[in-house]
Amino acid sequence: MGLDPARTVAELRELQELTGDENGAQRVAWTDTWARARQWLREKVGPTGAVEEVDEAGNQWFTLAGESDRALLIGGHIDSVPNGGWLDGCLNVMAGVEVLRRVAREGPPPLTVRLVNWADEEGARFGRSLFGSSAAAGSMADQDDLRRRKDADGVPLPEALAAHGVELDRALEARRQLESAVAYLELHIEQGPVLESLDLPLGVVLGTFGVERHLVTWKGQAAHAGSTPMDKRRDALAGAAKLALEIRPIAAEVGDGAVCTSGGVVCKPGIVTSVVETAEQLLDQRHLDAAKLARLLELAKGASERFAREEDVDVSWDRIWSIEPILFDERLIELADASIREVAGTSHRLPSGPLHDAAEVARAGIPTVMVFVQSLRGLSHTKLEDTKEEHLELSVQALDRLTSKALEAFTA
Amino acid sequence: MGLDPARTVAELRELQELTGDENGAQRVAWTDTWARARQWLREKVGPTGAVEEVDEAGNQWFTLAGESDRALLIGGHIDSVPNGGWLDGCLNVMAGVEVLRRVAREGPPPLTVRLVNWADEEGARFGRSLFGSSAAAGSMADQDDLRRRKDADGVPLPEALAAHGVELDRALEARRQLESAVAYLELHIEQGPVLESLDLPLGVVLGTFGVERHLVTWKGQAAHAGSTPMDKRRDALAGAAKLALEIRPIAAEVGDGAVCTSGGVVCKPGIVTSVVETAEQLLDQRHLDAAKLARLLELAKGASERFAREEDVDVSWDRIWSIEPILFDERLIELADASIREVAGTSHRLPSGPLHDAAEVARAGIPTVMVFVQSLRGLSHTKLEDTKEEHLELSVQALDRLTSKALEAFTA
Repeated sequence: MGLDPARTVAELRELQELTGDENGAQRVAWTDTWARARQWLREKVGPTGAVEEVDEAGNQWFTLAGESDRALLIGGHIDSVPNGGWLDGCLNVMAGVEVLRRVAREGPPPLTVRLVNWADEEGARFGRSLFGSSAAAGSMADQDDLRRRKDADGVPLPEALAAHGVELDRALEARRQLESAVAYLELHIEQGPVLESLDLPLGVVLGTFGVERHLVTWKGQAAHAGSTPMDKRRDALAGAAKLALEIRPIAAEVGDGAVCTSGGVVCKPGIVTSVVETAEQLLDQRHLDAAKLARLLELAKGASERFAREEDVDVSWDRIWSIEPILFDERLIELADASIREVAGTSHRLPSGPLHDAAEVARAGIPTVMVFVQSLRGLSHTKLEDTKEEHLELSVQALDRLTSKALEAFTA
Repeated sequence: MGLDPARTVAELRELQELTGDENGAQRVAWTDTWARARQWLREKVGPTGAVEEVDEAGNQWFTLAGESDRALLIGGHIDSVPNGGWLDGCLNVMAGVEVLRRVAREGPPPLTVRLVNWADEEGARFGRSLFGSSAAAGSMADQDDLRRRKDADGVPLPEALAAHGVELDRALEARRQLESAVAYLELHIEQGPVLESLDLPLGVVLGTFGVERHLVTWKGQAAHAGSTPMDKRRDALAGAAKLALEIRPIAAEVGDGAVCTSGGVVCKPGIVTSVVETAEQLLDQRHLDAAKLARLLELAKGASERFAREEDVDVSWDRIWSIEPILFDERLIELADASIREVAGTSHRLPSGPLHDAAEVARAGIPTVMVFVQSLRGLSHTKLEDTKEEHLELSVQALDRLTSKALEAFTA
């Protein structure tokens, strides 16, 4: 018997039964429900003969020894946000289990094949996403900060991890897990509307966007809405409004998938009888190309200074967070493209807006690629998240083909 | 000895000493400090021979009997906001005292002259402004609501009033005070930047703006800032931003002093990683001409519907509050203009953005006018509120001239 993609769908539903409720998935990392999901996964993988190991960061590895110690990795995360969907994270893990079964049945593969269930991708409890993968990638630079974090109930992060056998101080020892890795594959729901709008089931991911995230503060002058003539105003909201609109032609000018979002404006004093004195505007800009990301930022800053002059207000920029674009491996992109075409007829290349564990692995220098499967209405992080069963099955097939092609390519 | 405008300035400083602190004026209505200010006023007026009466709404009247029972009214309010300025309200009262002194010295005037210190113009403690003047004007229609109001410490409004001898249920009996009134004069600081920008000390007020106040709600679709291409977005903030900018050409098109303000936008979910789903926008539009005010609203609604189509979002309008424009008396406007020209050389006509007790008196059908004196930087409701002493003295002179002209005009 070969690959059974329908079994993956059935197992995803079984997992949802076991660890979800009427509000959605509840597999928040470092909770009993998450531990139950990991135990369930252990039992599913057991019959393949893959050997389990939980590393110092809590990542759960299943290793199927091959003819070489060099390892092809397939990864995902079984943790979810609270009230999450039935696919985000665990699809990758369960498709990987099905691929592992197929590979195991065919006898020792040319490379060792390892399935990894990363610990705490979502960061839902402590606000720190990509925990396990950043530890393994050696890019976790915020351990001092993490030591002080507490969840909403005041439980410190180190204490919550210790309850699951993880010592924060030793988490970076997980780095040795990537020493033997030659390539990394990850399947994920798109969490966006692109594939649905193109009526395509599958796409290959070129990399994860670089992000520039800023707080743009506009300072004008509070003034009475009744007694201040229009030409005597210094309206901070006018600056923010112009920028909220201008980021769109800027994104179009830079092109190639650029996205810019003004996620909110906080106005002070924010009352109906006063011109706005201060407007604090959130700005998020993303691009797959570092130079184009820099250009997005430069154009927006230039526009903001022009608007500040026009409105006789002040503007200042504070960086909240930024990350460089992370590009996936060209050879693996070609292999993923070919795999998708074989199972679905047509492929499509697209960037990933959200970050994924794959970005951490790629940052560590391991050739990496991701496959996206269509998300209905682009929804995720809600129980409304869904993907057609036929598309889920195609995605398992595509991951399986990609695994075969990668085993062949990286053995040579 | 004739009019002594410098004495008015000195008395305003004395009042500030008595009832203010390092944070500004503290004469909040229905407090001990306010009662102390009223007692102080009583002592100041005493020597003029004007007879005091406190009416059922707490308004404090000083009546100087004339040859006729028909009365010329001069009004102001000695109450302030907490941490208020040294002029807002009490300038009118103290200038009136000085005019009363001058009139009294000259023997019985042709008309009775009455100075009124309105009770609770600011509404600082219970959120209900123009309390005493609306009672006297007969336009207080919200007594049921007022009966339930409480201050920040939970003290009910009727209880606070009773402590100062005012029965809420009888407040409307103050209406009889206006029965004999033939005209009403009020001097006030501008609380806006117009006279300062024209380098003029004084102006005559044409009336108080009509106001249309709305909450404009924009509804789009929350979507991930990274995974949602620009052309797949339904951004509620884009609608609000367009309207925040469009109200300015609309005000210019309607003209004649039109003002429109978007005092704030509340964005939901309001996070950096999401397109804005809901934007709740405050909109305030004002005009002195009812038809033009209606046109401001019509144009803004039309624009919002156009923007909603352009952005593929929904828009809805909810009225928060509105009031018709209240026009002052043409004959009194001419007399005020002439008085200002006599004392300052140049006059200027302007609308009042803020409401004033004068608007209530005008609504009751009494010919009314206001004189504005320049406010430095347009500031009020703060201890930074200020006016040059020379301008304060000119304003007392102007009120005095206006009183003489009105006595003459309304005697005929």
